[in-house]
Amino acid sequence: MKTIHLGLIGFGTIGTGVVSLIQENRDLIENRLGARLNLKKIADLDITSPRKVSVSKDMLTTDAREIINDPEISVVIELIGGYEPARTFILDAMRNRKHVVTANKALLATYGNEIFKASEELGVDIGFEASVGGTIPIIKSLKESLVANRLRSIFGIINGTSNYILTKMSDEGKSFDDVLREAQELGFAEADPTFDIEGIDTAHKLAITLSLAYGKRVKLEDVYREGIAGISQQDIEFAGELGYRIKLLAIAIQRDEFVEARIHPTMIPLDHLLANVNGNFNAFHIVGDASGSVFLYGQGAGMMPTASAVLSDIIDISRNILKGVSGRVPARSQSENVIHEIMLLPMDYIVTNYYFRFSAIDRPGVLSKISGVLGENNISIAAVIQKGRRQAGPVPIVMTTHKSKEMDVQRAIKVIDQLNIILGKTIVIRIEDEKL
Amino acid sequence: MKTIHLGLIGFGTIGTGVVSLIQENRDLIENRLGARLNLKKIADLDITSPRKVSVSKDMLTTDAREIINDPEISVVIELIGGYEPARTFILDAMRNRKHVVTANKALLATYGNEIFKASEELGVDIGFEASVGGTIPIIKSLKESLVANRLRSIFGIINGTSNYILTKMSDEGKSFDDVLREAQELGFAEADPTFDIEGIDTAHKLAITLSLAYGKRVKLEDVYREGIAGISQQDIEFAGELGYRIKLLAIAIQRDEFVEARIHPTMIPLDHLLANVNGNFNAFHIVGDASGSVFLYGQGAGMMPTASAVLSDIIDISRNILKGVSGRVPARSQSENVIHEIMLLPMDYIVTNYYFRFSAIDRPGVLSKISGVLGENNISIAAVIQKGRRQAGPVPIVMTTHKSKEMDVQRAIKVIDQLNIILGKTIVIRIEDEKL
Repeated sequence: MKTIHLGLIGFGTIGTGVVSLIQENRDLIENRLGARLNLKKIADLDITSPRKVSVSKDMLTTDAREIINDPEISVVIELIGGYEPARTFILDAMRNRKHVVTANKALLATYGNEIFKASEELGVDIGFEASVGGTIPIIKSLKESLVANRLRSIFGIINGTSNYILTKMSDEGKSFDDVLREAQELGFAEADPTFDIEGIDTAHKLAITLSLAYGKRVKLEDVYREGIAGISQQDIEFAGELGYRIKLLAIAIQRDEFVEARIHPTMIPLDHLLANVNGNFNAFHIVGDASGSVFLYGQGAGMMPTASAVLSDIIDISRNILKGVSGRVPARSQSENVIHEIMLLPMDYIVTNYYFRFSAIDRPGVLSKISGVLGENNISIAAVIQKGRRQAGPVPIVMTTHKSKEMDVQRAIKVIDQLNIILGKTIVIRIEDEKL
Repeated sequence: MKTIHLGLIGFGTIGTGVVSLIQENRDLIENRLGARLNLKKIADLDITSPRKVSVSKDMLTTDAREIINDPEISVVIELIGGYEPARTFILDAMRNRKHVVTANKALLATYGNEIFKASEELGVDIGFEASVGGTIPIIKSLKESLVANRLRSIFGIINGTSNYILTKMSDEGKSFDDVLREAQELGFAEADPTFDIEGIDTAHKLAITLSLAYGKRVKLEDVYREGIAGISQQDIEFAGELGYRIKLLAIAIQRDEFVEARIHPTMIPLDHLLANVNGNFNAFHIVGDASGSVFLYGQGAGMMPTASAVLSDIIDISRNILKGVSGRVPARSQSENVIHEIMLLPMDYIVTNYYFRFSAIDRPGVLSKISGVLGENNISIAAVIQKGRRQAGPVPIVMTTHKSKEMDVQRAIKVIDQLNIILGKTIVIRIEDEKL
């Protein structure tokens, strides 16, 4: 039986999971691959702290070069994350004709063009299933299973922390701040949660997804991005009353030659499968022109689910090695030579339904004044909720709209927020009504 | 740009979808494959009826041999269904060193051992993604994405007709017979619906799924199978009251060295993702030891969704052809030389929760008599519903159980059905409480 030698750079949580899975399911993997996976070396700056797996001391090194320059190793697994030295390690490993498996979404979202081009030019494979959606086979599904489809849309819940927070807020009626604190205590949220709750992590993953579905070179700063910090319990309750649940969605929609790419809290119908993705689970709802609706769901993070995705890449590449081929499936669905740039639709031009919560003075004529401004801006109202009349202070007025243009909405809200009957900033949440 | 020549045998609904998809998405497919797909010939006994696609007359033939013996054609797509001549066509095409793509679940479930062995021995690939779950990438997910996992369980809704009928019965309160008649009128059910409603189609698909997950040679007659014809509106209503929805599930569970394989109407919790798979959609809930829960959902049938799956196989194989390799991924996850036989757990030994609906005389002592028999057989009651007391005729008594053994349940029900307080056959429906 042949042996394929692996080198692992990064012996943190996911790295530990990969080692553990290779050890625990050794027989099964050998039966399915028809070859042996030998994890030859593990590099990490910290090789003394105890891990949940036991490995021989000779395997450990603090010098990643021992892996990158080892002629016997054919697959390098990069799990240190971040930009540098991960980028240099990957490029150098490729130059040494090693295939690479990585879960590094930030790196691929930022330096993807360089890395994917290098992989193609050097004739080595790069696997990155674990970079988006954890254990969910989203990368393989886009590049292989749905390969013959024009993708109409991809809606994703791809940040576990945000989804955990929104789920807890919805199910337990707690405030954003309280749930965030709890999540931090439980280790579900980082001490600095910016990356997760402001949608940056989601943007990295959406950028990678977009490049598989529609083309290359999405500038991260061109993707519209709104996090969940502004979501209040009041909006969650109104959403429920209107038949919606609020989720942080990564949205990609093909509109003729343009692609909409946006990340924001979104109201989706309660009976939509995405509305039932709870806790730290991730999911994708994809619509292909031939396939119709496809929904994929699983753990978006975590030691073993992510290790499962890393192993799927290792085995995929090993199957190529055993057959003596590489570049069988282009890293980003198409050859880097022909893949075109994505034309993003400017946010001003997107059309969707909206939820508004106005903080208004409670007196006659307010509703007509607000709806007047909306009407002047081509926004037609679908539903209104007004209740809980008070003597003093603002009263919430909630409205949902029919399809409206973002540009019109922003203009109207700007005018409305300057009216003297309005006491606070109007809350705007987009609604996606598309059913599965 | 290279050209890969295809031959299609079977120009029915799915065949038409395949032709249409190759035509409509030609540019996209060429960009992603880096080669041209040329559908050279189409064989069908009927080449005169109009189709929804237009093809040149020279392409059409009534003689499948013109495809099987064409030296230029490298991939044969078999979409005629049934056992013969499909089996002979596939084996002969393979002997002529052609790769095969098929959606023929009945054939693979019955003659899989012969066909997969031939494919391996002859060094040709066989793609069958469309044979199970339509557009859902279940085959690829089991063989590639979840390849490093021991699969704890697979629960599938894999017969669209049965799911359509159960959904309509649940949502519209109609009887089985009425919904079946409607489904037949709408073309969602065959004139002879036996294959679908008695779980035979489901058994074919489960047999294929089992062979990818656990090994080869499942004898169809060894898979426990119960269809949906016995489901009444009354049981659907009681299920709802108990927090369940009834679905026809294909169930595979690893139990030590055994595998449970069974198909039957099943009560699943209302908040389980599978409970929300409605109409003619299909879905799989898979639990891997590393991945945890993975849920895949999509159209299980239909012209274009199935064509999408067929094309994914064609392109997968074409990518192998372009690299000059075959047999990169074993057809059934492992080489036919090492794949072992599955040891099915006899139905008597399965352990699950149960729902019983007794038709009893309405008089004191009945409940204690029934629960006495259950107790004697190691069956412990979880909940009881008894209502609607009547003067004459039977009254329904509904019970759910804690984990019980099938053998004990069958023995107890046999005794109970012979009691003189029982006026009709007791309805038994298994409950699967496992949460996502």
